[in-house]
Order: sequence, then structure tokens, then C-alpha cells
Amino acid sequence: MFETQTETRRIYEGRIISVRVDNVRLEDGREAVREVVEHPGAVAVVPVLDGRIVMVRQFRYPAGREMLEIPAGTLKAGEDPQECAKRELIEETGYRAAEMRKFFHAWLAPGYSEEQMHFFLATGLIPCQGEQDEDEHVEVEMLEVSDVLTAVQDGRISDAKTAAGLLLALEFLKDPAA
Amino acid sequence: MFETQTETRRIYEGRIISVRVDNVRLEDGREAVREVVEHPGAVAVVPVLDGRIVMVRQFRYPAGREMLEIPAGTLKAGEDPQECAKRELIEETGYRAAEMRKFFHAWLAPGYSEEQMHFFLATGLIPCQGEQDEDEHVEVEMLEVSDVLTAVQDGRISDAKTAAGLLLALEFLKDPAA
Repeated sequence: MFETQTETRRIYEGRIISVRVDNVRLEDGREAVREVVEHPGAVAVVPVLDGRIVMVRQFRYPAGREMLEIPAGTLKAGEDPQECAKRELIEETGYRAAEMRKFFHAWLAPGYSEEQMHFFLATGLIPCQGEQDEDEHVEVEMLEVSDVLTAVQDGRISDAKTAAGLLLALEFLKDPAA
Repeated sequence: MFETQTETRRIYEGRIISVRVDNVRLEDGREAVREVVEHPGAVAVVPVLDGRIVMVRQFRYPAGREMLEIPAGTLKAGEDPQECAKRELIEETGYRAAEMRKFFHAWLAPGYSEEQMHFFLATGLIPCQGEQDEDEHVEVEMLEVSDVLTAVQDGRISDAKTAAGLLLALEFLKDPAA
């Protein structure tokens, strides 16, 4: 299966996202329109410290509410995902990770968004509070590993990347050789 | 924590998404810009049939590749999420569900998108092939429940909602009383 671009129209050039609308030809020869949000990609980090996950709470304007999430952030132009994960972890939580291991890669909304996310498990955490970015407007909040599943089930977690990242990290923590 | 809209600018009115750029005032009085993708919300369905998950494979233009996903779709104006889940399941897979139980709710990309997703577990599946929508361009593919975790870990699943929905549904299938 494939779809081929036949025309493209630039709609918006923004800071985090840009938008274009493409005409495409489907495999069966028919034409269709595709609205595409361009995004440079992102990272998410599951930081584990003494049986707890280091989470962040922040206001999410599009959702109109605060949300409890795993630390995450957008790739800078040309930035290596693992370097981005280290940087975002420090900026958002004030922790530096001795080990950063990629365990998952996924698209977030592949129906209309190009955003890909690289997921890392961060261990060997060392506090370096002075380097936390005060402009981030996030609050650090700890979640017990034993409470993760319940937090997803009872609605404390209402962010898809956080649910996917935490549930998959739980499996990894059960069997680190996998 | 909160952010208050002080100005809004309409950028694009589309078929599935629209885009606006808002100026906001943060709690500490500072100003910021928020790029927002407007979206009516969506549903995702984990359909279970004889120890297997009914999945769909389709080309995702923003990702530039085929993807194996749980059935999903966008809410029509005023549509009840459960009705939408029933409709999308039939249109994409040709199965009607006797039981449809909501088990999760999440935002997909709350940094810039309003899209919320309602997740349903569908059981008691009955084939009604005649009603499958030929325009959907999706192929039905079965995934053994026992193979779900491996499929997420080995990269066959590279869609965040599919990973979150399947991993959480696995927990529910282990303990349906939860």
C-alpha cells in the first residue's frame, strides 16, 4: 500500500508545528486530500529511581488541564534523540541519568501528524538541581512503580505516550534481559 | 496551574483538523504563544475474538509507511463515543460487537493537539462482512493475545495508541473484574 503526493500547499510555518495540505494518489488511482501536521519528532523518558518513576505535572493548554506525564520534549534540529532525552530529563526534573536505554519508538497520531517519539528508560539517576530549567513550568512528582498500573486504570494518567511508556517499561523492569 | 487565552488567530479550517494560534497569559503573568490543532476527538477499539485481537493494517501518509493498529476513527459532530466505536469497528473490520466496554481515556499529543481518545474493549464479535466499508483501505490482520507484548517490543507495533490500548487491555483480560 502507498499514497503518492501530487500537490502540496503550505498552510502554516510555526515554532513547534507546521501544517501542509497535500493531494495524494492512492494505489487504486483515486485521489484524496491529506492534512499533515509537520513536527521534528520528540523523546519521552521513563526515569526510575529507587522503585519510583520521576514524573512531571504541567498545564497542557490544548487539553485545558494539568496532566501527569513522563518527562518529554521536542527534538532540536539535527539533535540525537538520546542527547535530547538526557537534556529534557535534566531540564524538567533536575536529574542526570548514568544510563539511558531506548526501548520503544512510535508515532503519536499518524492519521494527521508526522510526530515520532523515541522512548528511553533512564536509570542511575543523580540529582543536579541547579541545572533544572526554571522556565519549564513543570512540577516533579514521584509515582511508585507498584502504583503505575492502577494510576493508568483509575484516570490519574490520561496521556497516551505516558500510558504506553510506563506499561512497556513495567515489562522491561520485570525482565531487564528482554 | 493555568493559562488564560488573551488572543486567538484562526489559521486553517480543515476536514479533520483545524489550526489556531493563541496568545496566553501564564499563572506568573508572563505571556506565551500556543499552537493548537483542533480535533473533534476519536475512539480506538481493542476487539478480542477467540484469543486474538482483530487489528487493521493501513498506509499512514504522515508516517510514510504502513502501520499495524487497533481499529480507530474520528468522532462525527455530536456522536457518542460508544456509538462511534461500534461504527468504526464494523466499517474497518466487518465485525459487530455484542459488548463494548470503555477502559481508558487519553490525550494523544497534549502539547499541541486537542485530540482526546476513548478506548473500548469489544467482545462477543459477530462477522457482518457485507457492512465493511470498502472505502476504508484497511486490511484486517489477527494478532494472538499471547503475542501482543512481543509485537510491541519487537517493533511490529509502532503506534502509541495501539501500544497503550493493547498493553492496558492485556491487564484487563488477565483480571476482568478490575
